[in-house]
Amino acid sequence: RSRLQIFSCNSNPDLAQRICDHIGIPLGDAQVGKFSDGEIHIKLNESVRGSDVYVIQSTCNPVNQHLMEMLVMVDALKRASAGTINVVLPYYGYARQDRKARARDPITAKLVANLIETAGANRVITMDLHATQIQGFFNIPVDHLLGVPILAEYFRSKNLEDVVVVSPDHGGVIRARRLAERLEAPIAIIDKRRPEPNVSEVMNIVGDVNGKTAIIIDDLIDTAGTITLAANAILDQGAKEVFACCTHPVFSGPALSRIREASITEMVVTDTIPLPGDKMLDKTKILSVAPLIGEAIMRVHHEQSVSKLFD
Amino acid sequence: RSRLQIFSCNSNPDLAQRICDHIGIPLGDAQVGKFSDGEIHIKLNESVRGSDVYVIQSTCNPVNQHLMEMLVMVDALKRASAGTINVVLPYYGYARQDRKARARDPITAKLVANLIETAGANRVITMDLHATQIQGFFNIPVDHLLGVPILAEYFRSKNLEDVVVVSPDHGGVIRARRLAERLEAPIAIIDKRRPEPNVSEVMNIVGDVNGKTAIIIDDLIDTAGTITLAANAILDQGAKEVFACCTHPVFSGPALSRIREASITEMVVTDTIPLPGDKMLDKTKILSVAPLIGEAIMRVHHEQSVSKLFD
Ligand SMILES: Nc1ncnc2c1ncn2[C@@H]1O[C@H](COP(=O)(O)O)[C@@H](O)[C@H]1O
Ligand SMILES: Nc1ncnc2c1ncn2[C@@H]1O[C@H](COP(=O)(O)O)[C@@H](O)[C@H]1O
Repeated sequence: RSRLQIFSCNSNPDLAQRICDHIGIPLGDAQVGKFSDGEIHIKLNESVRGSDVYVIQSTCNPVNQHLMEMLVMVDALKRASAGTINVVLPYYGYARQDRKARARDPITAKLVANLIETAGANRVITMDLHATQIQGFFNIPVDHLLGVPILAEYFRSKNLEDVVVVSPDHGGVIRARRLAERLEAPIAIIDKRRPEPNVSEVMNIVGDVNGKTAIIIDDLIDTAGTITLAANAILDQGAKEVFACCTHPVFSGPALSRIREASITEMVVTDTIPLPGDKMLDKTKILSVAPLIGEAIMRVHHEQSVSKLFD
Repeated sequence: RSRLQIFSCNSNPDLAQRICDHIGIPLGDAQVGKFSDGEIHIKLNESVRGSDVYVIQSTCNPVNQHLMEMLVMVDALKRASAGTINVVLPYYGYARQDRKARARDPITAKLVANLIETAGANRVITMDLHATQIQGFFNIPVDHLLGVPILAEYFRSKNLEDVVVVSPDHGGVIRARRLAERLEAPIAIIDKRRPEPNVSEVMNIVGDVNGKTAIIIDDLIDTAGTITLAANAILDQGAKEVFACCTHPVFSGPALSRIREASITEMVVTDTIPLPGDKMLDKTKILSVAPLIGEAIMRVHHEQSVSKLFD
């Protein structure tokens, strides 16, 4: 049975350690540093020859630095004769640039997929892609994990009554329905409409939130504009209380002050993107995806070991 | 004859403008910005359909940001049906990671070559690669320009007497000889030797510098350790005066304070990497590579136009 090794780059070393703890192996010994001029410098301090190697790296801000760390790590592993190279991207940056929204737009999510394959990855494990189409941008296997079961378990443990799960837009309805099923709750959808050109958007709510405890769910929360406007619209329609949750707390620009000021009881997120102390609020609850990713790694590693028997 | 368009990313917009001025065309209209979370956002504001497009970008510090800007730009141009996409890298970052110096090293210079091809570039124009082998990392044509003629012209105009050109290491001898030929001067070579393990290096000079005006030449100056130690060794051997020159002023970490304190009369560099005001010293002289790159672009564009006649 081939050896399993896990290496971390610099975006999320705590999550990488938690994944190793879950599996019960030590984190691989490597330095991911910088030369004086800012170029990435990687040193693998142990042999990886023939191993099934997993690289844990979220391509969160600074996204280009984190992406290149991962690509250089894959290059080093490839040249050091790793058996298989599996890239674990708990958060897949550039996922919102997944189509030509306007003429002459790049499709950076596809470019990133090509870069990962070019570097030499054999497989990708990722979570809650902004668009599931991104799986199809790869010619290598992609395991796509969902945060909904983790979020659902947490909300179930709170024993909330009369819950409604709200999708902040039409694109998120499937995700909202998945959470709603697990909580045995109905759903509602926010329907943003611009009544006339150059008139600001109106948030209509399709579904009943009156007197209920609403849980808004999204894949990621970036500047938190959508989610805080949605919370207000839901409260205006008579909801008792609003929770918000997402898998990826991007939290850029005005996000923190908006969340602080919003009438949101709790903001539930996961650790796919680390939240340093100064990005934590009292109302933020972080759930770990380490057990989920750890299980996925063990399952894939088992598969890889078994397939080697038949090689 | 197909249209020529030149776009710039963010590393060196002044050089891009100088190149356009030399050729006599306006710089292409594009925005290369960032979203709130740090992801690159590119907007091409003019059609590039069928054009021969040149993207000017040095992958200097912050190298990963600058590299990704260029890759996303190439992706946007490709999807906007540019006729040919030519990447102009006045400075090629990661060029020093061009081989496995130690076990399990990445070869990032090769990774970068693969990334550029994967994004969709048809041709690369670059200058004074740290190792000329990097040309062979590409499967597309590479035009490799040299800074020596520009440096030589400048030093000739100073009418220095009794010149010797010094290579700071054995790797730079060919470059030193090229400059020496143009100045009709002899060369000398610095031969670093460690007399015993754990004893610091000694700088021996092979060749005669006594009473002469020395010009040290290198492809790039990064922390300036090599060049300032070399200057001291040359003066110790009786040289009258020391000039230093290079194509790429990387100037990271202690470079500026070292150059300021060194007994170097003048530091002659080019504008492949921009030197902001706070990186300029009185003794720094900047020569522009814009005419050289401009001529190269016009020559390649002419070739591309001609080859289309026979398509
Ligand atoms: N990092 C980003 N931050 C904000 N907007 C983005 C980002 N990346 C892409 N977009 C834009 O977001 C839109 C896609 O978002 P969506 O409609 O939610 O799939 C497109 O118009 C993109 O131009
Ligand atoms: N950005 C960098 N800064 C400093 N050293 C580097 C850098 N990139 C590579 N190196 C190291 O420099 C050496 C190659 O330099 P050279 O011998 O001059 O070709 C290798 O040992 C590399 O590990």
